[in-house]
Amino acid sequence: MGKIFKERTAVETARKLFLEQIVPLKLTEMVRLEASVDRVLARAVYAERNVPHYRRSAMDGYALRASNTQGASPANPILLELSDKVQEGSCVWVHTGAPVPAEANAVLMLEDTQKVGALIEVRAQVHPNRNIGAVGEDIKIGDLIFEKGHQIRPCDASVLASLGFEKIEVFQKPLVAVIPTGDELLNRKKIQEIPPPGRVLETNGLMASLYVEKWGGISRSSEIVPDNQQQLKEAVKANLDADMILISGGTSVGKRDHAPEVLENLGKILVRGIGAVPGKPTTLGLINKVPIVCLPGYPVAGLVALYFFVRAGLWKLAGKEKKLRLENSKPSLKRLLSAKVSSRIGYVSFVRVVLEGEYARPLMGGGAGVLSSVAKADGFLLVPENVEGYEAGAEVEIFLLE
Amino acid sequence: MGKIFKERTAVETARKLFLEQIVPLKLTEMVRLEASVDRVLARAVYAERNVPHYRRSAMDGYALRASNTQGASPANPILLELSDKVQEGSCVWVHTGAPVPAEANAVLMLEDTQKVGALIEVRAQVHPNRNIGAVGEDIKIGDLIFEKGHQIRPCDASVLASLGFEKIEVFQKPLVAVIPTGDELLNRKKIQEIPPPGRVLETNGLMASLYVEKWGGISRSSEIVPDNQQQLKEAVKANLDADMILISGGTSVGKRDHAPEVLENLGKILVRGIGAVPGKPTTLGLINKVPIVCLPGYPVAGLVALYFFVRAGLWKLAGKEKKLRLENSKPSLKRLLSAKVSSRIGYVSFVRVVLEGEYARPLMGGGAGVLSSVAKADGFLLVPENVEGYEAGAEVEIFLLE
Repeated sequence: MGKIFKERTAVETARKLFLEQIVPLKLTEMVRLEASVDRVLARAVYAERNVPHYRRSAMDGYALRASNTQGASPANPILLELSDKVQEGSCVWVHTGAPVPAEANAVLMLEDTQKVGALIEVRAQVHPNRNIGAVGEDIKIGDLIFEKGHQIRPCDASVLASLGFEKIEVFQKPLVAVIPTGDELLNRKKIQEIPPPGRVLETNGLMASLYVEKWGGISRSSEIVPDNQQQLKEAVKANLDADMILISGGTSVGKRDHAPEVLENLGKILVRGIGAVPGKPTTLGLINKVPIVCLPGYPVAGLVALYFFVRAGLWKLAGKEKKLRLENSKPSLKRLLSAKVSSRIGYVSFVRVVLEGEYARPLMGGGAGVLSSVAKADGFLLVPENVEGYEAGAEVEIFLLE
Repeated sequence: MGKIFKERTAVETARKLFLEQIVPLKLTEMVRLEASVDRVLARAVYAERNVPHYRRSAMDGYALRASNTQGASPANPILLELSDKVQEGSCVWVHTGAPVPAEANAVLMLEDTQKVGALIEVRAQVHPNRNIGAVGEDIKIGDLIFEKGHQIRPCDASVLASLGFEKIEVFQKPLVAVIPTGDELLNRKKIQEIPPPGRVLETNGLMASLYVEKWGGISRSSEIVPDNQQQLKEAVKANLDADMILISGGTSVGKRDHAPEVLENLGKILVRGIGAVPGKPTTLGLINKVPIVCLPGYPVAGLVALYFFVRAGLWKLAGKEKKLRLENSKPSLKRLLSAKVSSRIGYVSFVRVVLEGEYARPLMGGGAGVLSSVAKADGFLLVPENVEGYEAGAEVEIFLLE
């Protein structure tokens, strides 16, 4: 009537084993810049235009010949004629961003001048090229603007628009199938009342789908599959067109847990049980080339598996190489623990915390099933495998819960 | 031919002056949980159901009377009959999550038992209530689940679904009008070729719109308005139905900069020029009750104004009180500067950086107009007003560019 977890894989090892099996998607699509935010460039982008594309004044002031300002100072100003043509002894008004006449080789800023009738009093000396943006000074034709794999930000869309791009080629979004399984689960769309004892509404699938979408994938949800190996097998086979499959539930060691067997049967298990609390029953595998994550049914454990494996897996599928490289240096907050945190050696603990000023208050005494701890948590800290915990007052690194 | 900025307001002061004029939106709408991510709760949510809603076994094991295990140990096991009813001397198999029979007051975990034919060898003693989740132990009817103003995460949607909610009441998204202005601007949708000298494609409006959307607003873009005070005035008046107006360009002190005058004319200026580099010409104001941000036309300066004012303004409009409170404690990365950074006293410097392992390389030598610095930057650091800069090797706090 149930086995006990005999082995477990360290989280980092498990992640490595999982990620190295994931092949980034190759299919691409063209998207308009308006719809490009968070998409991933399928090829490097090189400039096809110069920025600026003309000799541009960097200041409000006067375009002139630098030699005409030689020796000028507030005590010893030089008078130039204000004209519409730059030549010996004359200058032309230019505003910031205006083209600089070809005959000029400098712009004298307004603040260093005084208008005296139709004349301009030059009160400072300028060197050639001063306050002129040369053609291509910022960006030259052929310059690498973004590497393949770059994830587009709003400011990037603007840079691309300035370079004359209307559309860019991006990788398609990974399609992720979400299969909830468990006899105890009820479809929440089909039941209004409180479920009978022993039955619960299926909601982990919703959580998984919404994280998939948040992390740049497209989710596709299956009907709830009962605790039946054959039915689960059929459901998985029906979803092998997806780029990743998440099976939510049925991954522990009870007699009703069929996900690992199905995985073994159709493909192979990479990791069976991880060194994480919560999250221990997480199972990872591969069928054909489709990565499979078996998410524990307890909501917090499922959340941990989503954060540890699904997010990184999605990044790899989507070609977000840079994000993956930065994975271990995610932005965090430093906070002082307002209470002691205990952790089991050999397991990474995912400790939910509430932020209270300079302090982080751990939400302890809650197991993997405690929903209220998820609702309350602002973020989490990770206690490494080889650490027994932290004392109250210790400074810890907090990641916000997305 | 242009004035010089005579005054400037410190960034923090400017933000305070701006935010205290912003009134959060009151209109709400109902959204399905599937579409609730990142939306903001318009009212506190209280539980209408208990979690668990039945006495739930926390373990795979045997439901029994705790008194029947008294004194049991591996050396001194006690035998109980395996039955379908809990009574004196008998126990019932329960899996994790199963309802515990009313007659039982504890669950003994599987690991502390041995099956011997039709009997169960009890090898440990359990106390009453052990491994039983009482009704409402996690969440009780009437418990506060989320405060008003909470921004929904995927895990929260799952919690709400578990409590039987299908839809939640959220604040409507703020509508932000974006008005680009400048004689030099060309509509990039209407021109395929490289613009003539002195003319550039309008792209700051695109950047502003995409950040507005990213930060939870709805953007509405106007046609480009020429440098004409009356036309700009009309454009602003036509957009006073919006919750915020962004005027991109025309906010400096040149003779072609009409945004501040229009603001003064139709409403009032709160801040004219800020102590930030880039970003100095940023102007903030109010017309009727609509907050107005005049974004500098230089792309990096515009980006700074978006980050400093528009983002926080959107949060306040959208009722994200908690995000505002946490504004000064955003997650960050600690990095070592690979080169010296200089800054002008009295100004916050927005320094773009490239992340290179443990180092952050500042992208200096680029003014407010340098597009390539935006494309290259992974993030930025802020040098406070009263700091002259940082030496190479100094540890600094880096915020990723969204």
